[in-house]
Amino acid sequence: MHTKQKPIVRFKANESLATEDTLAIEEPLAISLVYEKEGILQQKNIAITMRTPGNDKALAAGFLFTEGIISTHLQIEKISQYLENECVVSVKKEADLDLSKIERHFYTTSSCGVCGKSSIDAVQILQRDYQATAHFQVKKELFLTLNEKVRAKQLVFKSTGGLHAAALFDRGGECRLLAEDVGRHNALDKLIGEALLAGKLPLAQHILFLSGRASFELIQKAAMAQIPIICALGAPSSLAVELAEATNTTLIGFLKADSFNIYAGKERIL
Amino acid sequence: MHTKQKPIVRFKANESLATEDTLAIEEPLAISLVYEKEGILQQKNIAITMRTPGNDKALAAGFLFTEGIISTHLQIEKISQYLENECVVSVKKEADLDLSKIERHFYTTSSCGVCGKSSIDAVQILQRDYQATAHFQVKKELFLTLNEKVRAKQLVFKSTGGLHAAALFDRGGECRLLAEDVGRHNALDKLIGEALLAGKLPLAQHILFLSGRASFELIQKAAMAQIPIICALGAPSSLAVELAEATNTTLIGFLKADSFNIYAGKERIL
Repeated sequence: MHTKQKPIVRFKANESLATEDTLAIEEPLAISLVYEKEGILQQKNIAITMRTPGNDKALAAGFLFTEGIISTHLQIEKISQYLENECVVSVKKEADLDLSKIERHFYTTSSCGVCGKSSIDAVQILQRDYQATAHFQVKKELFLTLNEKVRAKQLVFKSTGGLHAAALFDRGGECRLLAEDVGRHNALDKLIGEALLAGKLPLAQHILFLSGRASFELIQKAAMAQIPIICALGAPSSLAVELAEATNTTLIGFLKADSFNIYAGKERIL
Repeated sequence: MHTKQKPIVRFKANESLATEDTLAIEEPLAISLVYEKEGILQQKNIAITMRTPGNDKALAAGFLFTEGIISTHLQIEKISQYLENECVVSVKKEADLDLSKIERHFYTTSSCGVCGKSSIDAVQILQRDYQATAHFQVKKELFLTLNEKVRAKQLVFKSTGGLHAAALFDRGGECRLLAEDVGRHNALDKLIGEALLAGKLPLAQHILFLSGRASFELIQKAAMAQIPIICALGAPSSLAVELAEATNTTLIGFLKADSFNIYAGKERIL
């Protein structure tokens, strides 16, 4: 249930036609956390995000991980979804949560790509183990094929034109995971969350594909999952490039069928 | 200072070329509020948003307005920007702020398009004065010209491909205001903020142009400014259409040089 039909009026070549259109669904998801503090069970509302329903538990888990609140799937006791638009993540009693990260969430806002992390310094939460990915190199021709592979799998975008995709490729160029959402940060959190829940983190031998532009926030989330190479169809921002440099991430932008730009980490591209 | 030069490697037609690219700047802006509560001056951090520097005071004012924290520019005493990435908005002593809206900001998150408003009901903060816009009607041919007019003015996008634009047109199809930003919500907040600070709200006789997709959040912000017609180059989400219906907003999507779709409020299109 990613789409909905709506009656519309289509105006074309000076004629109006009453017809139907397929829309990507956008709905709020509340994410809350249940944890023990000084022997007492606490429930805290962490986030409300506007997302496309589907893979909600992965989204919740991925969000908590990429925001640095949990550090492994082993800290999760269970994720409950009693209501359609709410995920409650219970963490294990012995889990050592970074509660400061939770507090920081309360100094944030809707229209915002960061959570109290107001600079690159603040987001270098997870230093990349550079040795783990130093030898991860990919031939440049491989990148030219990725967009077509994603389009072949990305069913909802085709019908609505309204969804972002995040996809994970292995070294051989095979698509291992794909997530779609009206929010590009949500698509990435779903992707990373799915890998997290399957115990597959870190993603140190993978390529991340993004269907839109590359912002600071997306690079930060990918760096948390230790993804060494990111390629985006759109433009990166200045801060996205600077964060890619600071976290030893290879960043490709304006990926097309016959060309791309390398903004950082060119040593991984053969 | 909307852009920055960065050295890149461009790969095309099987050749690599070391060159430079122009990037849209993305940097954090902290927005805080100074107000009096029970005779004591309070300073509260409201938001950190990742924005393209420029028109920061308009962004801060627009954000506070579209989020329902202030209701008129007359409540603002001054906006100070002592540091490059921080705006402090001082409100007048007698200003009757909706402090509950501030509190609500503390139950939110980075990756989020809403602020504790988890449903359409929750965002119908400002009921449109329908009489004021009932007779605002526009000929359909006018819409086909808007994108070209924006592109002619949108200087940064041309050089980077990385910025969203929000533009305000009058009934005659003349562009009255244009704002650009890496974040589409910021572009809209800058636009509404500029109109707010100039005392020009409500914008009940204007058309809003959006360079990307139309999400719930953008419709909500536009409804706060009482904008009757929104047209977007991209797709609307399901909730965007539903919110447009609920707020009596005309919503056009997939605007092209020879066609568009009307998703809501077709009675305003002649």
